[in-house]
Amino acid sequence: MSYLTEDTSAEVVNGRIGAQTDPRLREVMSSLVSHLHAFIKEVELTEAEWDYAIEFLTRTGQMCDDTRQEFILLSDVLGVSMLVDAVNHRLPEGATQSTVFGPFHVKGAPERPMGATISLDGKGELCLFEGRVLDVDGTPIENALVDVWSDNEDGFYDVQQPDIQPPFNNRGVFRTGPDGRYAFRGIKPVSYPIPDDGPVGQMLAALGRHPWRPAHMHFMISAPEHARLITHLFVAGDDYLASDAVFGVKPDLIVGLEPVAEGDAMPPAEQGEAAPVKWRAQYDFRLKKQG
Amino acid sequence: MSYLTEDTSAEVVNGRIGAQTDPRLREVMSSLVSHLHAFIKEVELTEAEWDYAIEFLTRTGQMCDDTRQEFILLSDVLGVSMLVDAVNHRLPEGATQSTVFGPFHVKGAPERPMGATISLDGKGELCLFEGRVLDVDGTPIENALVDVWSDNEDGFYDVQQPDIQPPFNNRGVFRTGPDGRYAFRGIKPVSYPIPDDGPVGQMLAALGRHPWRPAHMHFMISAPEHARLITHLFVAGDDYLASDAVFGVKPDLIVGLEPVAEGDAMPPAEQGEAAPVKWRAQYDFRLKKQG
Ligand SMILES: [Fe+2]
Ligand SMILES: [Fe+2]
Repeated sequence: MSYLTEDTSAEVVNGRIGAQTDPRLREVMSSLVSHLHAFIKEVELTEAEWDYAIEFLTRTGQMCDDTRQEFILLSDVLGVSMLVDAVNHRLPEGATQSTVFGPFHVKGAPERPMGATISLDGKGELCLFEGRVLDVDGTPIENALVDVWSDNEDGFYDVQQPDIQPPFNNRGVFRTGPDGRYAFRGIKPVSYPIPDDGPVGQMLAALGRHPWRPAHMHFMISAPEHARLITHLFVAGDDYLASDAVFGVKPDLIVGLEPVAEGDAMPPAEQGEAAPVKWRAQYDFRLKKQG
Repeated sequence: MSYLTEDTSAEVVNGRIGAQTDPRLREVMSSLVSHLHAFIKEVELTEAEWDYAIEFLTRTGQMCDDTRQEFILLSDVLGVSMLVDAVNHRLPEGATQSTVFGPFHVKGAPERPMGATISLDGKGELCLFEGRVLDVDGTPIENALVDVWSDNEDGFYDVQQPDIQPPFNNRGVFRTGPDGRYAFRGIKPVSYPIPDDGPVGQMLAALGRHPWRPAHMHFMISAPEHARLITHLFVAGDDYLASDAVFGVKPDLIVGLEPVAEGDAMPPAEQGEAAPVKWRAQYDFRLKKQG
């Protein structure tokens, strides 16, 4: 007979796992129970704190709907999302670092001609993003799909303002040629707060933390025979680089935006695009081989 | 600048806690983050597993309403509720052990005369519960309030079947006299499953665990100058004593029910009560001094 005591609690709980249980489920749950019990013992969690935890988790679940995922936010602000990214994407020397996917990617963004503008609302300062998609040994990768997305000048993704922003505003997919080059006109991204009107925002406030993310452009790069890369480019000089609410920043992903002088050479834009480009960001991505 | 890496993740997250943060909140959250990150690293949680965890927690929150608290069930089946009970109720030698409160207590149950029947539906076999409320040194405690509740013969608490069971069925409060004695007629409790039609039930099934609790009578005993005692008496011989789904059993709380022979002396019942008592359970509770 195995009764739970303070000393044996995790072993007793894990000892109940059935013999036929999937080995990986056993491994994950046993570790979870051990660490959860160790936490409770270490802080000697009070009954009032336990009550609060139950209520907090309940509110977090009930905040979730089709357009809001409060548990992902919780994972993000506790560094869990970035840690999961880290343990699943240990990259070789020379490969571009990954960072959080975030909740704002949309499948099916249009493939646009190289150099085209993804900013469709005419707001914000245009920035040319350009560079190459390379293997870790420096070989250009042809037929890489470069899927990019950012917020608009007001700090919102199009899906957050479906009634205001044009469809696929600040989104596009670009396909590299034999030289591995990509180029597109986006806006100079702006910093924005994660949604902070729910339980996670209350937790951040209680911890003396702000909800802001430093300005960034999202990239998801897929190429034949290479591991998909999900990352951001962060804008150098942003106020929140050292305090990203979701811990997404890595030093190698920070890029300086250079001002563009009138008359500087630019790749051709799509027909009818005339707005001047104010900034340019240059970055080469290096992809790890598949498997 | 503090960027998150696999090696430093918990320190980086905890390093963001503001200087003005409540010290206890800092202590609890820092420990939680450290153990949570250690878990993720230990099992190298995959992205698919992280997805599943987010979805599981979301469903758990969305299962909760006025009559169902799925996060408490989750806490219960992971041994967390009993562990929190243990760290908050370290009792002196000789004091009666506590166990989980459970979700089925109701405030305002009627005070009944000593010896009265709490089973109002006429179902189940009657059992006389009797004994004394004592100090740890054996002194009887006067004016102790003995608040008791159990399921009915079908394994349901009255609040689970508000349309079927009479109000306060299998509930009552008894007040001890100078001899510290209590006595009441309840049913011989029956084992019952915790609600298992939600995420927690699915988890138990995946772990090869059943949802059953061994038969028990709940007690909450309050007395002047003594710490309140929340506990159960478990029925000896129950099939689930060694595998209580919520880990509530402690050996000292198991009581043998003795069969009652016709003509055995019984304390007086309330007027009009005539059903024969089939069983008797004898137990003395020993309460720790307040503070
Ligand atoms: Fe973003
Ligand atoms: Fe119960």
